[in-house]
Amino acid sequence: MIGVLGGMGPLATTDFMRKVIEATPATKDQDHIPMVAWSVPQIPDRSAAIFGTGESPLPMMQEGVRRLEQMGAGCIAIACNTAHYWYEGLRRGCGARLLHIGETAAERLVALGVPKGRVGLIGTEATVRTRVYQDRLEAHGYECLALGPEESERLFWPAVRKVKTGDTQGATPLLEEAVERLLAAGAARVVLGCTEVPVGLAPARKEILERCFDATDALALACVAWATAEPARAA
Amino acid sequence: MIGVLGGMGPLATTDFMRKVIEATPATKDQDHIPMVAWSVPQIPDRSAAIFGTGESPLPMMQEGVRRLEQMGAGCIAIACNTAHYWYEGLRRGCGARLLHIGETAAERLVALGVPKGRVGLIGTEATVRTRVYQDRLEAHGYECLALGPEESERLFWPAVRKVKTGDTQGATPLLEEAVERLLAAGAARVVLGCTEVPVGLAPARKEILERCFDATDALALACVAWATAEPARAA
Repeated sequence: MIGVLGGMGPLATTDFMRKVIEATPATKDQDHIPMVAWSVPQIPDRSAAIFGTGESPLPMMQEGVRRLEQMGAGCIAIACNTAHYWYEGLRRGCGARLLHIGETAAERLVALGVPKGRVGLIGTEATVRTRVYQDRLEAHGYECLALGPEESERLFWPAVRKVKTGDTQGATPLLEEAVERLLAAGAARVVLGCTEVPVGLAPARKEILERCFDATDALALACVAWATAEPARAA
Repeated sequence: MIGVLGGMGPLATTDFMRKVIEATPATKDQDHIPMVAWSVPQIPDRSAAIFGTGESPLPMMQEGVRRLEQMGAGCIAIACNTAHYWYEGLRRGCGARLLHIGETAAERLVALGVPKGRVGLIGTEATVRTRVYQDRLEAHGYECLALGPEESERLFWPAVRKVKTGDTQGATPLLEEAVERLLAAGAARVVLGCTEVPVGLAPARKEILERCFDATDALALACVAWATAEPARAA
């Protein structure tokens, strides 16, 4: 059984579950992988905790991991990029396989044959500063290029706000420019490490989309790969 | 905490969770209702059990209800119309509030001011034959009109198959005709009691949609109403 630690936010949880379902080879309901989700939006804000203005979300996330294990989850995914800052704290005492979105992204880049070297990264300041992706990507031979503060302020944040208020079309040109800038700086691919970004890029030009890589998709694929490799624990 | 008994099928579970999230008045993540989902697609096929060709799904669904209660669910929704055939068996020994999709549909029709009398019902043969909706609607003064066997064969089933294979546009005229036939027979509203039907009707004409009533939406609203009425158990 796959466990989903969620609620950060709640829609990111259902979107992630949907990605696992869509990534599963299935011709009937019974072919799908059992899943349990613990979606508790009351988990304290991750960015506020990282920047020292809010309480730590770790105790509540640990409670979630415990609950998912009690339910029988043999593999747990965290449906939030920034929450991975607390990965080591969550892994301690966790008997299930706990996936790391930076690690599954790195493994997927390798599997796709993306050459070692520069890759771009689009994510929140909290995700970028805490090196959720960088440490794992570097361990696999990739060098991470993130947006500069000016680009973040002018392109990333307005795009995220537009997506959150439903203006996907308005976000698209901003995110296209962000991707283009990272490609121009030598990135072979651009890792989308923030839930809102793939939504805002969905209407983007094909040549842009081909160079992007949705880290949440890679996390969903890793869940399916786990279930395939460990059918007894997945059941 | 709201519990979702799901996996029947898996996408119906994530769609239902999304409906609860969208029905919740919220300006930030923390305003949303904690939710736990047990989504196990290995639950035996409900229609096969009803028609005597497959094993009962009840023991596995009972296990799911127990697990959701263990996780702290104070109110449980079943994200499958046909599974409500086993409602009484699930309710026995269940300490949480267990919602019934027929009951929440009836209560919502009353709240919307739909006059007592005829309402239409579109659902699978298993849902219609086992009176998931009829008994509850009749208790509230509504008389249920279902499609006849010829209409089911010619309109409903081909539409469901089209939705399941992604041909939503192809399903729409079939379902529009099904709704029109029930309206012509005197239905004030048509209850959509099958997951695929609202999907197939999404592109329908406005005058058709205005006369339809998505039972899953009403079930999601009942979850939100429970959380509002019982904030201590919802937390």
